[in-house]
Amino acid sequence: MSSKLGAGVTRTDRLLSDARTIRYYDTAGQVRATADKREKGEQPGIGELRLDPLVNEWVAMAAHRQGRVFLPPKELCPLCPSTGENLTEVPEDNFEVVVFDNKSPSLRPPQGDWALPDMAGPDTDTGTAAGKCEVICFTADHGHAFKDLSTERIRVLLEAWMDRTRELSKEKFIHHITPFENRGEEVGVTLAHPHGQIYAYSYIPPKVSRMLEVARKHKERTGKVLFDEIVAREIKDEERIVAQNKHWVAYVPYAARYSFEIHLAPKVSVADLSELTTEVADAYPAIAKEVLQRLDGVFDIPMAYIAAWHQAPVREGRDLLRLHWQITSVRRAPGKLKYLAGSESSMGAFIMDLRPEQSAAQLREVKLT
Amino acid sequence: MSSKLGAGVTRTDRLLSDARTIRYYDTAGQVRATADKREKGEQPGIGELRLDPLVNEWVAMAAHRQGRVFLPPKELCPLCPSTGENLTEVPEDNFEVVVFDNKSPSLRPPQGDWALPDMAGPDTDTGTAAGKCEVICFTADHGHAFKDLSTERIRVLLEAWMDRTRELSKEKFIHHITPFENRGEEVGVTLAHPHGQIYAYSYIPPKVSRMLEVARKHKERTGKVLFDEIVAREIKDEERIVAQNKHWVAYVPYAARYSFEIHLAPKVSVADLSELTTEVADAYPAIAKEVLQRLDGVFDIPMAYIAAWHQAPVREGRDLLRLHWQITSVRRAPGKLKYLAGSESSMGAFIMDLRPEQSAAQLREVKLT
Repeated sequence: MSSKLGAGVTRTDRLLSDARTIRYYDTAGQVRATADKREKGEQPGIGELRLDPLVNEWVAMAAHRQGRVFLPPKELCPLCPSTGENLTEVPEDNFEVVVFDNKSPSLRPPQGDWALPDMAGPDTDTGTAAGKCEVICFTADHGHAFKDLSTERIRVLLEAWMDRTRELSKEKFIHHITPFENRGEEVGVTLAHPHGQIYAYSYIPPKVSRMLEVARKHKERTGKVLFDEIVAREIKDEERIVAQNKHWVAYVPYAARYSFEIHLAPKVSVADLSELTTEVADAYPAIAKEVLQRLDGVFDIPMAYIAAWHQAPVREGRDLLRLHWQITSVRRAPGKLKYLAGSESSMGAFIMDLRPEQSAAQLREVKLT
Repeated sequence: MSSKLGAGVTRTDRLLSDARTIRYYDTAGQVRATADKREKGEQPGIGELRLDPLVNEWVAMAAHRQGRVFLPPKELCPLCPSTGENLTEVPEDNFEVVVFDNKSPSLRPPQGDWALPDMAGPDTDTGTAAGKCEVICFTADHGHAFKDLSTERIRVLLEAWMDRTRELSKEKFIHHITPFENRGEEVGVTLAHPHGQIYAYSYIPPKVSRMLEVARKHKERTGKVLFDEIVAREIKDEERIVAQNKHWVAYVPYAARYSFEIHLAPKVSVADLSELTTEVADAYPAIAKEVLQRLDGVFDIPMAYIAAWHQAPVREGRDLLRLHWQITSVRRAPGKLKYLAGSESSMGAFIMDLRPEQSAAQLREVKLT
């Protein structure tokens, strides 16, 4: 089953041996007919959601995730294309970008009718951990990083993220979609192959819930979209801008929480990836690559980071929240990491070790090769 | 200057060479007259608070904190008693418990009149990083951990925390006080000497703000104190209880976020440490020690943890929030840490890898020596 997307991308769907779906995003008319030769596996059961009553937030219990492989060598990498010796998650012997259902998902599609209980205290504080978790591989090349991808490949990647957002948004049980990349052992990455994940939540995640509340109050008071005003202010202030082109602007936010934190936003704002126009999407790869090259250039070492797409929820607040890409690095100096200890972890009170203006200057000064 | 506290503790205040205060908490009539022989140092300037407009939360900018010492050997430890060769933060050649003003504080007492601007968006989004940061040393013995302290010493430590809470509460610019301990390099500890910190915030930290809001709604709806109901439910459910005595109960909370997370609460609830009665305070050391011994016993290795006292704010919500001690470990297995990656860090959506009931059982099964 193949379908045509934007940017010359064709998507072909196949089933893996345990009935999970893999989607190939291709640009050169490849035929994707290779079957998954692994034994038929079983899929884990669905987990539990529990309400943390102190803050009224859902916590997903994924007790069946133990036993994941930890940093396997290249010849055993489950995200590389399959070879005769190593049957991986990708049956084909090469690929551009693939997205497949996570083998050990924290969140799974629910069976039959499903509804999350209202958050109404101790009596209705459990539900099933509904949602969907997918893995996205950026390249078949085990040794590459996002910043090493060609701009053409980054455009395919963006098209795949846009496609996943569109498709997952159709599922009734999905309320928020977050594509993200964790990079570096320092943030717990267990597979070195360049990849990201897509979490589709059946609930509004706590951070988004908070952002919604703040944006809603702002709109009620001023009639304006908060995020648009934030971007306008960063453009006006100028000193925290790291890079920009006609359609995108990258800045260290005024109140950054990490020494190296970059937000990349389209200049004409949209609710989520599905709303990006072709022109704006085409302008993303170059600046995305530049921003990540600058990040690695600050200390001339691969920086551990989390890069997450912030999107408006699927079914509410689409006039309130705006698409942007948040990159936060836990590294604050070559030998030093930022730990979330007492103040941050217990109290949510962040202490930032560098002025955002200084951080932005360091990022701007990196010589690109 | 000496004063008598509870539990037979005497507090003696002295000035360090850079005018910071050190407070000795003693039980054996020690005279604390030794002067700080170090050169007169300068204190850093006050930092900045910036409002993160996306979530309406303050972030403290502490750019002057770089250059802290990193895991010095015992003979250079700044938290050990002073010797002829090593002039430390503690001028005396021995001590029980001391509390001194942090040399590189993230938050500092403001000069003159001071007020934090209202959180009213982009126009009033900066303030000075007012507050106070103190360091508390649990013992003069470099090699000990909290769980190795005698119950007598833990009682002195508790008395010191109670005293600091009482005294800091009198400062007009202080709105919330959090005593905490970070333990282990895995959570960024840079000094191996057993110690904790006390953060006194000039604002309500984001997590507390959220807890206040939830507890307020619960009280409006039901007339009840949310935390009391949570503790009652844990006692009723029983299966997540780790330890208890007449006055305290320790449990893995129903919706724990970490594989090993323990909350310790007094059975008769109080707003903060200053309200603990002598009887309840006297019952804390044994169970505190037991809980931390159980934590280290699960894998028979020293567990990295953050142990923070959650208290009601100084000037509001004292009928809504309740004192308890939250211990969270970032370790989920001998070779595995829990990282706050994409879902947790970007979205605030926690994924827990172990059922709380299983975690509580593992903690209960530890044989105490």
